[in-house]
Amino acid sequence: MSYETLIYDQDGPVVTVTLNRPDKMNAFTPTMGREMEEVLDRADNDDSVRAVIFTGAGRAFCAGMDLSADGNVFGLDETVDPTSPEMEKNRDTGGRVVLRMYRMKKPLIGAINGASVGVGTTMQLPMDVRIASPFAKFGFVFAERGITLESCASWFLPRLVGIAKAAEWSYTGRVFKADEALAGGLISEIVKPDALLARAHEIAESFSARTSAMSVALNRQLLWRMMGASHPMEAHKAESRTMLHTSMRDGKEGVQSFLEKRDPAFKDSVSDGPPAGFDWNAEPDFS
Amino acid sequence: MSYETLIYDQDGPVVTVTLNRPDKMNAFTPTMGREMEEVLDRADNDDSVRAVIFTGAGRAFCAGMDLSADGNVFGLDETVDPTSPEMEKNRDTGGRVVLRMYRMKKPLIGAINGASVGVGTTMQLPMDVRIASPFAKFGFVFAERGITLESCASWFLPRLVGIAKAAEWSYTGRVFKADEALAGGLISEIVKPDALLARAHEIAESFSARTSAMSVALNRQLLWRMMGASHPMEAHKAESRTMLHTSMRDGKEGVQSFLEKRDPAFKDSVSDGPPAGFDWNAEPDFS
Amino acid sequence: MSYETLIYDQDGPVVTVTLNRPDKMNAFTPTMGREMEEVLDRADNDDSVRAVIFTGAGRAFCAGMDLSADGNVFGLDETVDPTSPEMEKNRDTGGRVVLRMYRMKKPLIGAINGASVGVGTTMQLPMDVRIASPFAKFGFVFAERGITLESCASWFLPRLVGIAKAAEWSYTGRVFKADEALAGGLISEIVKPDALLARAHEIAESFSARTSAMSVALNRQLLWRMMGASHPMEAHKAESRTMLHTSMRDGKEGVQSFLEKRDPAFKDSVSDGPPAGFDWNAEPDFS
Repeated sequence: MSYETLIYDQDGPVVTVTLNRPDKMNAFTPTMGREMEEVLDRADNDDSVRAVIFTGAGRAFCAGMDLSADGNVFGLDETVDPTSPEMEKNRDTGGRVVLRMYRMKKPLIGAINGASVGVGTTMQLPMDVRIASPFAKFGFVFAERGITLESCASWFLPRLVGIAKAAEWSYTGRVFKADEALAGGLISEIVKPDALLARAHEIAESFSARTSAMSVALNRQLLWRMMGASHPMEAHKAESRTMLHTSMRDGKEGVQSFLEKRDPAFKDSVSDGPPAGFDWNAEPDFS
Repeated sequence: MSYETLIYDQDGPVVTVTLNRPDKMNAFTPTMGREMEEVLDRADNDDSVRAVIFTGAGRAFCAGMDLSADGNVFGLDETVDPTSPEMEKNRDTGGRVVLRMYRMKKPLIGAINGASVGVGTTMQLPMDVRIASPFAKFGFVFAERGITLESCASWFLPRLVGIAKAAEWSYTGRVFKADEALAGGLISEIVKPDALLARAHEIAESFSARTSAMSVALNRQLLWRMMGASHPMEAHKAESRTMLHTSMRDGKEGVQSFLEKRDPAFKDSVSDGPPAGFDWNAEPDFS
Repeated sequence: MSYETLIYDQDGPVVTVTLNRPDKMNAFTPTMGREMEEVLDRADNDDSVRAVIFTGAGRAFCAGMDLSADGNVFGLDETVDPTSPEMEKNRDTGGRVVLRMYRMKKPLIGAINGASVGVGTTMQLPMDVRIASPFAKFGFVFAERGITLESCASWFLPRLVGIAKAAEWSYTGRVFKADEALAGGLISEIVKPDALLARAHEIAESFSARTSAMSVALNRQLLWRMMGASHPMEAHKAESRTMLHTSMRDGKEGVQSFLEKRDPAFKDSVSDGPPAGFDWNAEPDFS
């Protein structure tokens, strides 16, 4: 399987997805959006994959929506009445990609190698970890282009960096550097360019080396889902079921190996399915 | 239009609202609450206004509720049964003001020039930016007065500074200084007293110099609304509509000016109204 | 009243609860879970108690679930169909404890004296303050044991330390030290071992020395409840009622003592009951 705008490369349990339009600074197109959904599905459904790294080919990470494209650069059909049922299919392209990221069962790591703006920055927000080269840039530039936040950034950004920083970055639209992203909590680490991918791999392996794939999948979905839950009781209900399920499977080996002071050999596969009543792909309707 | 307790002063796109009872350390009264709602309406409905700064006359920012007033200092009618329909009109005064701030279409900047306590501190929480003089003070003093958090501080404060800091400040009721407010994330900057308003203006201008008024208005409402949304799908629905709306208006100029490497000349006015299905003043009932 | 696994010790307005299985590193058992619910009830219903400190006997704080116990170490009945009505009683033990903590009317302070992992770490999350010895350790080790987050950690953890840090700690399962816990926002202070309990007492007293017990109880419940509320209007409704209630009781003394520049002498008791329409123990069903 190959892609027009991406490279999909697996090394052991780690997949690296490279945004691959270097002559266009990896600018985002509707095709790239569709292919990103495809590679997320592919990695999620492959039990041999334990984490996914995103990076960019060449000097940039992603220069935002490709504004040089002919026709409607934002991918929305301007003839659709937004109050009509047709709006159901007239959805923000970046939003579709990040909602797929939100539902992932495998951790996502951004290795931000260079400049990013617009959707190039907002697509990073539902990733679990973001590390960056000192040459990385970031920008919620929408207000300078006369448009608005997209890719569900209005939901993700305040939860990641707090409402005050989210507001300032969104109202000015200005581009800022890696050190400001680090200080503001948008990224967790600045890494020398030639060590960036190795460090991303190291993080990916820390998520898989000694852990149960099922545990990580459930922890990921629990954490992201509970971000929007109105009461800890929602977590109590879900966790009572995930604990019951896992304690009868990989949990047995987890306890046994702990008592025997040896490394665990986990066997449960994500593709075996989630606990009863827990839908991997649960998502509210768009309407 | 003039006010008993406030000064409303416009300079270019920036309005400065000064709490103006300097002989009472700008203590809050029901009249001040009503007038704050009026100036917020006025600034929000005036397309020439792009941001609002709040500061205090004299040495203080706001010494909280004016406890020296005769009669019911908290503005609540003590004869009302809280389970009766009459409670509908017996609402916390500070809460009415901050809910109006929450719905604003223009960014709000607090230039905290001196001491604030009680409602003088809690009214700052729904502002987008807070900067302060080194002489500023803050205090969630309610527990020391035998009363409780108000002005929706129980909602805003943990979202701004985290639950641990919110708890500590609220349980002790102690007054603290600008450096602790900065360390705790309550303010973003400490500025010398004679440079405070100039810095607030600089921030206000960073929100308007190169941006679409409509983009900033929509970004503000998206960010604050999505703070309470249960799933990123809510953002996806709203953003798909705000992107569709803006991409046909200021977005055209945004893309064109970017491709032509010139400054944008945005034309869409907030008073032209929001995208279809997006109510600027949407608010749940009090009941 | 005495306990098999805990010591309950009151000193003035402050209760210290010591996890007391030092030969087992205070490992958690179903009995300890039940006894923790009992001491939380006891402290909450005793007007002489104003704050509760949790610490551990011996070198550890709590080594997580006691995996050396015979039979089902996780306390869940594996024969129960999770989609059946019997699941109603088959609940995560740690979750029951932290939901009781969440509903407390008295502040909770963790004095983390040594190693904690698993439920030993997650039980700390609904406390209001966590301080720790330099020898303290923490670990969300579930993925290394083949199980998942419990004790509602999927709800509490991202709200306390942000989703990025929550994800990293939960996916690796690694154990980390006090300095990393401090940097990540999990604890607020590192204190020398022999000063740890004295510092916890100092904090407990800062919550009670000059404050109304009713104010602190209501502030605590407001802050934790509003963490999950979808709109500040929820806070406005609740606060309008708590302000009305308290302004007629301890609030009178609060204002009077302030005007007379003397210490307040508050009289309202938590056991007198909450404001009309405000249920101290409100909790959604588990189902």
